[in-house]
Amino acid sequence: MPHHDNLDQLCINTIRTLAMDAVQKAKSGHPGLPMGAAAMAYTLWTRFLKHNPANPAWPDRDRFVLSAGHGSMLLYSLLHLTGYDLPLEQLKNFRQWDSLTPGHPEHGLTPGVEATAGPLGQGFGNGVGMAIAERFLAAYFNRPGHTIVDHYTYAIVSDGDLMEGVASEAASLAGHLKLGKLIYLYDDNRISIEGSTDLAFTEDRGLRFQAYGWHVQHVDGNDLEAVAAALRAAQAETERPSLIVARTIIGYGSPHKQGTAEAHGEPLGEDEVKATKEALGWPLEPAFYVPDEALAHFRQALPRGQEREADWQRRFAAYAQAYPDLAAEWERAQKGELPSGWDADIPTFPADPKGVATRTASGTVMNAFAPRLPLFIGGSADLAPSTRTLLKGTGNFAAGSYGNRNMHFGVREHGMGALLNGMALHCGVIPFGATFFVFTDYMRPAIRLAAITRLPVIYVFTHDSIGVGEDGPTHQPVEHLAALRAIPYMTVIRPADANETAVAWKVAIEHQEGPVALALTRQNVPTFDRTRYASAEGLRRGAYVMAEADNGKPDIILIGTGSEIQLVVAAREELAKKGIAARVVSMPSWELFERQSQAYREGVLPPGITARLAVEAGVSQGWHRYVGLTGDVIGLERFGASAPYQTIMQHLGFTVENVVARARALVGK
Amino acid sequence: MPHHDNLDQLCINTIRTLAMDAVQKAKSGHPGLPMGAAAMAYTLWTRFLKHNPANPAWPDRDRFVLSAGHGSMLLYSLLHLTGYDLPLEQLKNFRQWDSLTPGHPEHGLTPGVEATAGPLGQGFGNGVGMAIAERFLAAYFNRPGHTIVDHYTYAIVSDGDLMEGVASEAASLAGHLKLGKLIYLYDDNRISIEGSTDLAFTEDRGLRFQAYGWHVQHVDGNDLEAVAAALRAAQAETERPSLIVARTIIGYGSPHKQGTAEAHGEPLGEDEVKATKEALGWPLEPAFYVPDEALAHFRQALPRGQEREADWQRRFAAYAQAYPDLAAEWERAQKGELPSGWDADIPTFPADPKGVATRTASGTVMNAFAPRLPLFIGGSADLAPSTRTLLKGTGNFAAGSYGNRNMHFGVREHGMGALLNGMALHCGVIPFGATFFVFTDYMRPAIRLAAITRLPVIYVFTHDSIGVGEDGPTHQPVEHLAALRAIPYMTVIRPADANETAVAWKVAIEHQEGPVALALTRQNVPTFDRTRYASAEGLRRGAYVMAEADNGKPDIILIGTGSEIQLVVAAREELAKKGIAARVVSMPSWELFERQSQAYREGVLPPGITARLAVEAGVSQGWHRYVGLTGDVIGLERFGASAPYQTIMQHLGFTVENVVARARALVGK
Repeated sequence: MPHHDNLDQLCINTIRTLAMDAVQKAKSGHPGLPMGAAAMAYTLWTRFLKHNPANPAWPDRDRFVLSAGHGSMLLYSLLHLTGYDLPLEQLKNFRQWDSLTPGHPEHGLTPGVEATAGPLGQGFGNGVGMAIAERFLAAYFNRPGHTIVDHYTYAIVSDGDLMEGVASEAASLAGHLKLGKLIYLYDDNRISIEGSTDLAFTEDRGLRFQAYGWHVQHVDGNDLEAVAAALRAAQAETERPSLIVARTIIGYGSPHKQGTAEAHGEPLGEDEVKATKEALGWPLEPAFYVPDEALAHFRQALPRGQEREADWQRRFAAYAQAYPDLAAEWERAQKGELPSGWDADIPTFPADPKGVATRTASGTVMNAFAPRLPLFIGGSADLAPSTRTLLKGTGNFAAGSYGNRNMHFGVREHGMGALLNGMALHCGVIPFGATFFVFTDYMRPAIRLAAITRLPVIYVFTHDSIGVGEDGPTHQPVEHLAALRAIPYMTVIRPADANETAVAWKVAIEHQEGPVALALTRQNVPTFDRTRYASAEGLRRGAYVMAEADNGKPDIILIGTGSEIQLVVAAREELAKKGIAARVVSMPSWELFERQSQAYREGVLPPGITARLAVEAGVSQGWHRYVGLTGDVIGLERFGASAPYQTIMQHLGFTVENVVARARALVGK
Repeated sequence: MPHHDNLDQLCINTIRTLAMDAVQKAKSGHPGLPMGAAAMAYTLWTRFLKHNPANPAWPDRDRFVLSAGHGSMLLYSLLHLTGYDLPLEQLKNFRQWDSLTPGHPEHGLTPGVEATAGPLGQGFGNGVGMAIAERFLAAYFNRPGHTIVDHYTYAIVSDGDLMEGVASEAASLAGHLKLGKLIYLYDDNRISIEGSTDLAFTEDRGLRFQAYGWHVQHVDGNDLEAVAAALRAAQAETERPSLIVARTIIGYGSPHKQGTAEAHGEPLGEDEVKATKEALGWPLEPAFYVPDEALAHFRQALPRGQEREADWQRRFAAYAQAYPDLAAEWERAQKGELPSGWDADIPTFPADPKGVATRTASGTVMNAFAPRLPLFIGGSADLAPSTRTLLKGTGNFAAGSYGNRNMHFGVREHGMGALLNGMALHCGVIPFGATFFVFTDYMRPAIRLAAITRLPVIYVFTHDSIGVGEDGPTHQPVEHLAALRAIPYMTVIRPADANETAVAWKVAIEHQEGPVALALTRQNVPTFDRTRYASAEGLRRGAYVMAEADNGKPDIILIGTGSEIQLVVAAREELAKKGIAARVVSMPSWELFERQSQAYREGVLPPGITARLAVEAGVSQGWHRYVGLTGDVIGLERFGASAPYQTIMQHLGFTVENVVARARALVGK
């Protein structure tokens, strides 16, 4: 076995060499971070982290996020070494098809990976969301003498994370919320892809985090005792989140590449791997060498973890005896199950030609079911009065009142998105976030990660079209329906009226396989008479025949969504007067529709009826999938304008007259 | 006329009452900010701002950005009062169809509006970009004794701006770059839409900006002399950008609403407007009252501005005499014209079956033309080695070397986007920015504003598909082509090979009516033999027949873009062996194609040929517009995977075999 001063160094170099070997074998990857951060990660994982490798789902485990996901081999090494179900064979298959060790960590794929990370700043925000979920659940479930929720959230964050605005937003909120159980190790290696961080990143990071209200310490990241002391001090600090600025050396141990950008994102090369092993006093062969002594030391995590979880299970059993209802609720929430009858109070809205904005109907619906869903928590990015997302009967989630459910994210859409992901990753809560639809652009990287990770996050996006009116083009979404629908595993629902909104919420709450976005109007829309038109329950299938042609034999199919349904419904009647039989299809969700059987889909859109007109106040992109080359789309290929919304709709062609005219042109009558 | 202690207060209250009246008349808008910030804006505009209302395009004017664009009536009032071509009638038409006074300021619509603002944080970043352009142009054009570029960039920024991550990114860069001529007034009114900023924003803002390397002062925003002293101190500070934290009262003067969220985003109401006018000692009638004395005072901006510009014109004339070539270059750049022969050195790439990645071809092309386009400046968000965007023969744009052209944006895609917009808004430079295509999500709000404002910004987006390979799904764009194409006025080009890349760059540089994005491969693609296939110049038309069916009578049209062209080209030959005549259409840009005549479009895609197969390694969304209900698309309705790219392409159906099979299914042979 290699000569080492001590067991710690042996273990740390095991991490370093595994990372180096895996990247070399894959011929791609990032050796520099794992090698540089190995010592501090080792300290955290072996002396502090509360986890049970045999049960990665133990609810009260500490959370660990590798925000700098490109350093994935650090995490895979730690998972393998401490005894997670990740055999060494998987490390040898780093970055290969179907392996459990993809280029960047993927939650849900690899046991023990708490967050899908790689896009920088996201993991930083996820950790803040996890810490929020922990505080909320602690406030909700813990009882005097019965603490069943009490864990830390740790992360390793990088220069890149700290440069991203999303991390700034999340950090500011974490400080504001006094998340004392959040502890981040900042891998201050001063190297980025283009070279020294001095090229672009010379701010005083520590001072910046002090300004956010964080507890900031500076240590040598290779000094185990210093790192341990800083972690202890961070744990002792209960009022402020902690940033431990740990000075490290990227690619530590590589004689010719350490401390340079060359160590960052490519294999060291066979010669340099050899040179590094020599420098570290490591055997050159075999690759992926794990000394028995190191493995034995790491694997103490298993008995230790089992003991800690067993202790928690004993405490939970006592809790369950004292508070059986709460314990049952806890277990249900952990499984992602809903309380029976959760939707019993959701109203049916009476027909009303004047109607109500779907954002307002949404607020009514949320407040109807929220009392029966006490773990439904979220808020708005400083737009609650407009998004109608304030929950009654509860207060503001804030330091000192962590049991409340109204979150105030501030004007931080991106931070909100990353936090929501973290809350969903934590498990136990049903998180939602709200903003204007146009500002989905600000949080798109987080939405994408929610979709990749299939997180059950709910978005309430109001002010969903040029119907925004006077605020003008900067505030009017035009391309956003198309842009969101383009994201795989994302479900977008744009309900037509109050009753479709109620059903949309049911779908959103029940949906477990990815995020759901509700696109809601600012302006009033009629509440349709469902004795005349098909039930709004049809929304569950994505599209449904809302009104059949009077003679049952449609000459044309009029398809609409959201606020434009009122136009096609009225046009159908006008067309009937002219002897044209039109079917109205309400199509609130492409994704739900695509999940239906071919028979259902062809029932709604029969292949034989090729005269089809889609009407939606947004770009037409994507609609030709449903109307084909022979159909037509009334959409927008421009931005909106500032004016009262009725004026804009009129000028841009969203009128019954225009629908009738375009429909007549299609059928040639 | 109303009683006032002095002329200053009369003028300030003129701003306040105009804003209040316009919002009231429009029945929507934001009175609070203009009323609260009127005093400091007045101080800046009447005592400091170098501008000529008679010529809003005077190149050496100071720039003023109202980043908090919702306070647009502040800006419209100042523009009208100081003598821009914005009659009072326009203020009375606030937020109406076709007015020059939309809800949020729109550059290009209203004389004197320097930036389209409203989405928070963007204007903050735009200002930094303007200050960068100023420093670069000063370094490039100024000569000893001849200073023709020398102006400040001012902005009023709000709580919301400071909460947005994009502002954090831009602020960090501004401090790093030591942009001493950047001076921001922070309207610290401590009110956001949901209520007190204490709800979500309790960080120490001043300390945070000190950490970024800014010069920070605190003043009472209603104390004119204090504001003036702070502005003078900010001007005297030449090494650091300045943030003047100005404590203000939102809705100042409104007896019942000032200092509350109610004053933020809705009309005060008739009664409160009346009460406010009474409190301010203002006549209740007429609305939109502008006292003659106030107007006369404001309008001194006209003679003063004319004099300042005349002085500059004299100095420019002397400069033109001393440096006629530079002066000619200056004038050409101001008009957005290109030097003749700018593209003379762009190479033609020889046919090469092994080929080259289009990102690499792009780097070659950029370096070929850059010496002839000295005002072409930009860089990457810490990915220059990968995006191949480093310009040779010049150094890093940095404090002390502002004449260099390689910008280092750091891991700050969103900040980069906002800065590029500011550089384009400033005029005189041709800005470009680069990152991985997947990270366009991070900068989408800035891209959208570039499109709304039709800014000639060029984006170099590399690693454009699952061809990214090992980095995996977090780094593989799948929905991004669709998402970018959805933005109106955006031009997306995905060239197929090195020669299409060269033509794409020509289009990008010449295009003046909005942003252009190049989507480029990480992996090698063949350089096609253009003696066998149609010229790459066809790219200019968006789509072109790259290879006709051998018999000239296609059974099927195969459409591809980028790296997938090689598949359809090979499939065409395979199909020919099976007696199927296939036309290959290279379609690098939907937007360029849609700008062609119907005759051209139908020449490429004849309506009579309905067997059409599109192949693109991305979501299929939008392709049915070209293939219809009877065509097919080989796309992706999932995220990618981590593996060598050839493996991924194989597994996900991007093979010649699959193209052949799907084509045969379409034609039934």
